[in-house]
Amino acid sequence: MRSSQMKFIENFKEGDRINDIYLCKHRQAAVTKNGKPYENVILQDKTGTIDSKIWEPNSGGIEEFEAMDYVEVVGDVSNFQGALQLSIKRVRRAQEGEYNPQDYLPVSEKDVDEMYSELCQILGTVQNPYLEQLLAMYFENNEAFEKAFKFHSAAKAVHHGFVGGLLEHTLGVVKLCDFYCRQYPDLNRDLLLTAAAFHDIGKMKELSVFPENDYTDDGQLLGHIYMGTELVRASIRRIPNFPKRLSAELCHCILAHHGELEYGSPKKPALIEAVALTMADNTDAKLESFREVIKSAGDNNGWLGFNRIFDSNVRKTSR
Amino acid sequence: MRSSQMKFIENFKEGDRINDIYLCKHRQAAVTKNGKPYENVILQDKTGTIDSKIWEPNSGGIEEFEAMDYVEVVGDVSNFQGALQLSIKRVRRAQEGEYNPQDYLPVSEKDVDEMYSELCQILGTVQNPYLEQLLAMYFENNEAFEKAFKFHSAAKAVHHGFVGGLLEHTLGVVKLCDFYCRQYPDLNRDLLLTAAAFHDIGKMKELSVFPENDYTDDGQLLGHIYMGTELVRASIRRIPNFPKRLSAELCHCILAHHGELEYGSPKKPALIEAVALTMADNTDAKLESFREVIKSAGDNNGWLGFNRIFDSNVRKTSR
Amino acid sequence: MRSSQMKFIENFKEGDRINDIYLCKHRQAAVTKNGKPYENVILQDKTGTIDSKIWEPNSGGIEEFEAMDYVEVVGDVSNFQGALQLSIKRVRRAQEGEYNPQDYLPVSEKDVDEMYSELCQILGTVQNPYLEQLLAMYFENNEAFEKAFKFHSAAKAVHHGFVGGLLEHTLGVVKLCDFYCRQYPDLNRDLLLTAAAFHDIGKMKELSVFPENDYTDDGQLLGHIYMGTELVRASIRRIPNFPKRLSAELCHCILAHHGELEYGSPKKPALIEAVALTMADNTDAKLESFREVIKSAGDNNGWLGFNRIFDSNVRKTSR
Amino acid sequence: MRSSQMKFIENFKEGDRINDIYLCKHRQAAVTKNGKPYENVILQDKTGTIDSKIWEPNSGGIEEFEAMDYVEVVGDVSNFQGALQLSIKRVRRAQEGEYNPQDYLPVSEKDVDEMYSELCQILGTVQNPYLEQLLAMYFENNEAFEKAFKFHSAAKAVHHGFVGGLLEHTLGVVKLCDFYCRQYPDLNRDLLLTAAAFHDIGKMKELSVFPENDYTDDGQLLGHIYMGTELVRASIRRIPNFPKRLSAELCHCILAHHGELEYGSPKKPALIEAVALTMADNTDAKLESFREVIKSAGDNNGWLGFNRIFDSNVRKTSR
Amino acid sequence: MRSSQMKFIENFKEGDRINDIYLCKHRQAAVTKNGKPYENVILQDKTGTIDSKIWEPNSGGIEEFEAMDYVEVVGDVSNFQGALQLSIKRVRRAQEGEYNPQDYLPVSEKDVDEMYSELCQILGTVQNPYLEQLLAMYFENNEAFEKAFKFHSAAKAVHHGFVGGLLEHTLGVVKLCDFYCRQYPDLNRDLLLTAAAFHDIGKMKELSVFPENDYTDDGQLLGHIYMGTELVRASIRRIPNFPKRLSAELCHCILAHHGELEYGSPKKPALIEAVALTMADNTDAKLESFREVIKSAGDNNGWLGFNRIFDSNVRKTSR
Amino acid sequence: MRSSQMKFIENFKEGDRINDIYLCKHRQAAVTKNGKPYENVILQDKTGTIDSKIWEPNSGGIEEFEAMDYVEVVGDVSNFQGALQLSIKRVRRAQEGEYNPQDYLPVSEKDVDEMYSELCQILGTVQNPYLEQLLAMYFENNEAFEKAFKFHSAAKAVHHGFVGGLLEHTLGVVKLCDFYCRQYPDLNRDLLLTAAAFHDIGKMKELSVFPENDYTDDGQLLGHIYMGTELVRASIRRIPNFPKRLSAELCHCILAHHGELEYGSPKKPALIEAVALTMADNTDAKLESFREVIKSAGDNNGWLGFNRIFDSNVRKTSR
Repeated sequence: MRSSQMKFIENFKEGDRINDIYLCKHRQAAVTKNGKPYENVILQDKTGTIDSKIWEPNSGGIEEFEAMDYVEVVGDVSNFQGALQLSIKRVRRAQEGEYNPQDYLPVSEKDVDEMYSELCQILGTVQNPYLEQLLAMYFENNEAFEKAFKFHSAAKAVHHGFVGGLLEHTLGVVKLCDFYCRQYPDLNRDLLLTAAAFHDIGKMKELSVFPENDYTDDGQLLGHIYMGTELVRASIRRIPNFPKRLSAELCHCILAHHGELEYGSPKKPALIEAVALTMADNTDAKLESFREVIKSAGDNNGWLGFNRIFDSNVRKTSR
Repeated sequence: MRSSQMKFIENFKEGDRINDIYLCKHRQAAVTKNGKPYENVILQDKTGTIDSKIWEPNSGGIEEFEAMDYVEVVGDVSNFQGALQLSIKRVRRAQEGEYNPQDYLPVSEKDVDEMYSELCQILGTVQNPYLEQLLAMYFENNEAFEKAFKFHSAAKAVHHGFVGGLLEHTLGVVKLCDFYCRQYPDLNRDLLLTAAAFHDIGKMKELSVFPENDYTDDGQLLGHIYMGTELVRASIRRIPNFPKRLSAELCHCILAHHGELEYGSPKKPALIEAVALTMADNTDAKLESFREVIKSAGDNNGWLGFNRIFDSNVRKTSR
Repeated sequence: MRSSQMKFIENFKEGDRINDIYLCKHRQAAVTKNGKPYENVILQDKTGTIDSKIWEPNSGGIEEFEAMDYVEVVGDVSNFQGALQLSIKRVRRAQEGEYNPQDYLPVSEKDVDEMYSELCQILGTVQNPYLEQLLAMYFENNEAFEKAFKFHSAAKAVHHGFVGGLLEHTLGVVKLCDFYCRQYPDLNRDLLLTAAAFHDIGKMKELSVFPENDYTDDGQLLGHIYMGTELVRASIRRIPNFPKRLSAELCHCILAHHGELEYGSPKKPALIEAVALTMADNTDAKLESFREVIKSAGDNNGWLGFNRIFDSNVRKTSR
Repeated sequence: MRSSQMKFIENFKEGDRINDIYLCKHRQAAVTKNGKPYENVILQDKTGTIDSKIWEPNSGGIEEFEAMDYVEVVGDVSNFQGALQLSIKRVRRAQEGEYNPQDYLPVSEKDVDEMYSELCQILGTVQNPYLEQLLAMYFENNEAFEKAFKFHSAAKAVHHGFVGGLLEHTLGVVKLCDFYCRQYPDLNRDLLLTAAAFHDIGKMKELSVFPENDYTDDGQLLGHIYMGTELVRASIRRIPNFPKRLSAELCHCILAHHGELEYGSPKKPALIEAVALTMADNTDAKLESFREVIKSAGDNNGWLGFNRIFDSNVRKTSR
Repeated sequence: MRSSQMKFIENFKEGDRINDIYLCKHRQAAVTKNGKPYENVILQDKTGTIDSKIWEPNSGGIEEFEAMDYVEVVGDVSNFQGALQLSIKRVRRAQEGEYNPQDYLPVSEKDVDEMYSELCQILGTVQNPYLEQLLAMYFENNEAFEKAFKFHSAAKAVHHGFVGGLLEHTLGVVKLCDFYCRQYPDLNRDLLLTAAAFHDIGKMKELSVFPENDYTDDGQLLGHIYMGTELVRASIRRIPNFPKRLSAELCHCILAHHGELEYGSPKKPALIEAVALTMADNTDAKLESFREVIKSAGDNNGWLGFNRIFDSNVRKTSR
Repeated sequence: MRSSQMKFIENFKEGDRINDIYLCKHRQAAVTKNGKPYENVILQDKTGTIDSKIWEPNSGGIEEFEAMDYVEVVGDVSNFQGALQLSIKRVRRAQEGEYNPQDYLPVSEKDVDEMYSELCQILGTVQNPYLEQLLAMYFENNEAFEKAFKFHSAAKAVHHGFVGGLLEHTLGVVKLCDFYCRQYPDLNRDLLLTAAAFHDIGKMKELSVFPENDYTDDGQLLGHIYMGTELVRASIRRIPNFPKRLSAELCHCILAHHGELEYGSPKKPALIEAVALTMADNTDAKLESFREVIKSAGDNNGWLGFNRIFDSNVRKTSR
């Protein structure tokens, strides 16, 4: 495990000689205009990716490997048309233990364990005995769930697309809902917090785990909204005497949380908690998305160009 | 059971004295401009409904009854502002056995038993052993299901909103899909027919049974698309070794059968069978809707005015 | 001033004889089918309105009055087609001093003074010296503004359409924004809180004061988004050295706070604070709107019918 | 005519030397970065197209030719950036008779003559004497029409964009309509089948014939919906006593067959047959489009990426 | 012919006794709450319509008549719920010659003959010999066309729905186009003026003549855009050597003149003249619609309420 | 100042040696595949732009310069992939006085001074004393304004994006409005002409001056619609007794002149003059846009491909 002295991709500079382990995200054979075979490779660590070339794929130093392998590479960094490029001289597949997978995955900037504790603490205040039991099935002494939940992302691309992203987003939504309950006393706090806790639980089935983090077949065909609701309904059935009306209300909140049919919810919010959950989900998603825009802008204080999510040219605010 | 000699509402004429049993759909107390109390009542049989008034609610002949009761009424038919109206003189609640419920509900014009046989026969040609088992759980020797399925409507209002409507619509869609399979050999017939059989099964949970035939609480909050898919997924789990990919494909077809997100499907059709099912569902719905427009027009061959479903003025075609 | 013993409209019952002062919202002469003249009147107090009739407009007890007058009436409550109706026997215009205008206007259920204090306290935490000066021009020792701001509504109909509504909504939005700043540190708190404080300030020009509370000519032609922004820009010009970039950022937030061009903002949010303000405004508006739906439902726990704002049938949640 | 031994483009492999006749779809002069002139050429046969280069355009072996010429080429196949490329060494214009045009055009996979027979047979069952005469003007003993109709495509790109495509699509729609008539007896079969037969007849004027198969000037300015309707109306005028109402109904079906104004129909379907034709046209178009997606996927059973027509990621179904 | 001394409906006042001839637009039998038969009648003249009642339909003075008859009525004007109503005491069908149809139809406020002269004069400046011939077929010495064109309306309801309306609108559009040609020299004046002259010619087939002025069967099924284009294309075919490209350009302008597919044009404007015609048509339609709003407002200078065409509350401008 | 003998970019031909002054629009360092540094440069004059390369950036003849500098270059024109390219051999920054800026900016084809005179003359006919004063503040003896107004463009890209463009567009709109007033007497001419004169005045703040001609920070955040209205409102405040209602009407016209909320107007047109201004603005914009399409097509009389503004394939009309 070498992360302490590891050279991260965001620190590469033209002229560097690299000798370290990276995750191979992509590999494809190609041919130059002159008919000479070469290979396109994309390497990744938690700080970014770099386009790489193997110009002599048949040379002795180039061992077998494929996408999703961790590989030790030796190579040189150059600048091609304004972007850095790595010319790989030698490469070999690394063994488990030689690397720390956390170094190769985009991760939350926040502490995952602290976030999980905070989430459990808030959910621990739910009073309704049926909802309490339901939450306990997941968030109390369920190590397998805890481990998986902490590791999952909330998206393939867009916002919260990193390790811990599902947790970070869930916590953000739960906290907003918790605040709403203080400000709008008509809200049923137990119902709203429980719905917030589970609203994106279906993402654990929609997206495969890192490093792949891509849509599963079920994800493509059924989606996280359907699968999350079904999962919760199945858990509810295992709780004796869970009130039917409460069950429908909770599942409605999950089903309707995208707010509009055209965003993939098969029902529009019909309860005040469903409306509140939609607001919290949208607020956390939009503000995190803008945070990522700001972060990727670095120290550029000017206009950043048209942004598809915000349907507008955007820029950072003066401080 | 008096249906043979019963006087149906569609045959009422101004000046008739009525003395028969009808279903009370609605009852509400009211007051005339002069402060005199009276009651608004709507009576129904399978041929239609009639606005009725009880002008002397406190007279001896007016016994207790409420909405959804079958009541024997004595009254006179008059014409008020162009529509017939029944002035109720006497009314009493009828006992089970005095009437035949079938006389009071809108019913399919087709023979329900024949339609069910035809449906089972077509579904009996499905070859895939897993899909065959799944279909058998519902359509083979399941009397409770058969009875309920035959009795259900496919809608509160719009198309197929009558006893046997769910069966008639399901059969119509299955037959269209069966024909598609002959014309487009890329279609997986077993998958498509099974999806067609179950595509609206969730309506049995979304709508309460006749005579109420209204949205249930679950129907309002979760909808038939979600509930039907969940029901089929639960049944699949009881079939050993049901292939995961096939399960996802089948459930995707059900989930996506409204064709567009804005029509309440949380996923767009992503498989050719899902596309085909959308086409069949839409074709049967639209042509049945137009049939109902034509039927309700009687012998009016002129333009019938703007129709909301077809977003156009419509008329019958010359013959 | 008789509010202590006043009989409020929400307490009227069939058979009551009424003798009290109400606000006349509407008055119109009419003729019965038989050609007899009568008058339609709508009376209002802070608990609601009641349809009223003057059947003998030329009798001695009916004195001159018109819409927006406070009138003392004597009359009897009856039930017409399911709704209460007041038959006015005598009526005279009341004098200022005989009534308390606050009894006749829909008012916030919260204490207006407390809300104003809370608002000022939060705004008092703004640090940026230019924004601090701008806020002080309105929210510090400006009695005329304070009085007008406390009395204004935030809407003609829909949400917060009552005395104190503009204050209640502004406070709700400011508090949400304040919470956002704790959860999303990228937000510029000073900018966001200031924008929240002023976001609907243009409503003071768009809507006339109570009891009229209707669109002004300027409101119809220019709208509160334009007028509010212009007002703030004019105030900014009176603050020496106010940074041009900060001015544009603040005014952009106000201009863009409806979030979408089709909702009347001439610019889409292009800064993270503008996005946040949109979220807070929408959240407070939607949750208050649903609260009003719930309140008007009384103890009806069933489905309440299609609601235009939520584009769905809605109901209260189980408790 | 050498199709038996011809080497089709879909069979080209890296390293092949080619010596055969192909259709030149495109030719354009260019210059390398170093200022050396060369030529970009696209060659086509019925199995596909290949990017080609003439690196020595002024050499002796390169004779004169232009787009839409059939040319005999000698060249070598290489792989450039993952795609095959032909380096042309010699080229000469081929003479009519040296090649079979059918080898160079995308063609229906079905037998064109059999399809035409089947179409005529179904249309031969139309009973209405006026519609029968109208159909006969085109589909009975009209060799010029038959030849042209069999050769035409139904599209420039998208579905049925091949020789015989118009026929294949028309037959598909006619057969669906024929089936509808069995299932929905309200449909006027004679009217519907006739409308189906002519619904895309305007494509013969909208698109030029192969090998060009591109929009004509009239096609761009007037479109096939207008031109097809006008053509049928003109033919109707030559049939004595053709009923005016029937004429309007038939032409309405053609005019409205895209179903929605935004898809280019100037009228929404207002008759049940117009609705049915829209359904049949859409069903055949969508299922053929998906068939073409499946075919082009070869043996790829995974997700194929976002498809613009279906507005979704798509994949083949398990078998 | 009594128009000089005729009492126009816009001058009716409560208490008037009427004895004059009016056009019967509508007649329908009805029954009062008490079962007494009566009749609803709508009478019309060029100044408006009035709801009328025949309370004693079986009395001697009530002779036979039906909708679209001119009838002499004797009756009394009263005020019912704020609107005037005529109680008909006696009625008889009037004979041709007793009345002047022009008195009973809404008519242009401008002189029809002058407008026609002005139109012909402008069209007389078209130079292109083919377009000149085409225009001459309609606008030169064609009395039947001239009479019909002058009498036609341009709409059933909305703008220009009066005698002379088609002429007034056509002239308005032609004059705008003429001005455009002076300001934008890229425009082909001959083409644009000819297209303007014919752009709504299909309305003569879409709407029946006054007093009916309602959609014809062809109008409902095919629409004026299709029929107008077809008419012009048919006329073009009778002009030897009319250039094919010019024909397509002219007909494209007519076909595309609604500007958007969703407004019923099957093609979007693809030529600058088609764009210009769309602008002129829209400008004349919108400004005439607003003129009619202003006129119907009388001397009301306040806000007139939400207007569906302008999708806004509207009012008159200060002078 | 060398414009007379200057070689304009539109006249460059392959093989030319260039030695002249051009405006540098863009400069960026790059590296070839082989690691050799070079520079991408875009040069501009009023007739167009040309891609240029400095292959030897470190050679002696390459002096310092940056974007927006005027530079004297020596270089050779070649053809790269169908487009001309300039290989720069020597370059030096030019001094003010060596060049005429007008030669380097896209300019109106019309005479700017004549257009300004014509505009002032029409505006001089406004009678209303308040509007007259308002116009005079800008269009009478205001040299600074005149100079800036004449030099400004009306757009960054799309229509009228050249020196004098704002003037040319304003004049076009004013003249259309002037003509409307003759044809539609309901229009208040003084109000409409004044609104037309100022409708795009906010563009002077939204776009920076040439040669940059790009959105300003205020332009991005507030937009020309808001800023133009605010500017006019501020000027109005300096005119004693300017009627409040007239002020609101004028500013409404400016605010609403994009016609639809989704085009950035915060209010829909609610007055007939606002509707007229929308029509004039749209007409001038569309016809000028099409003129620019036609001009850039040169002598290509065929179809020009899909045009985003017109949402259609377009072509020139036959003459």
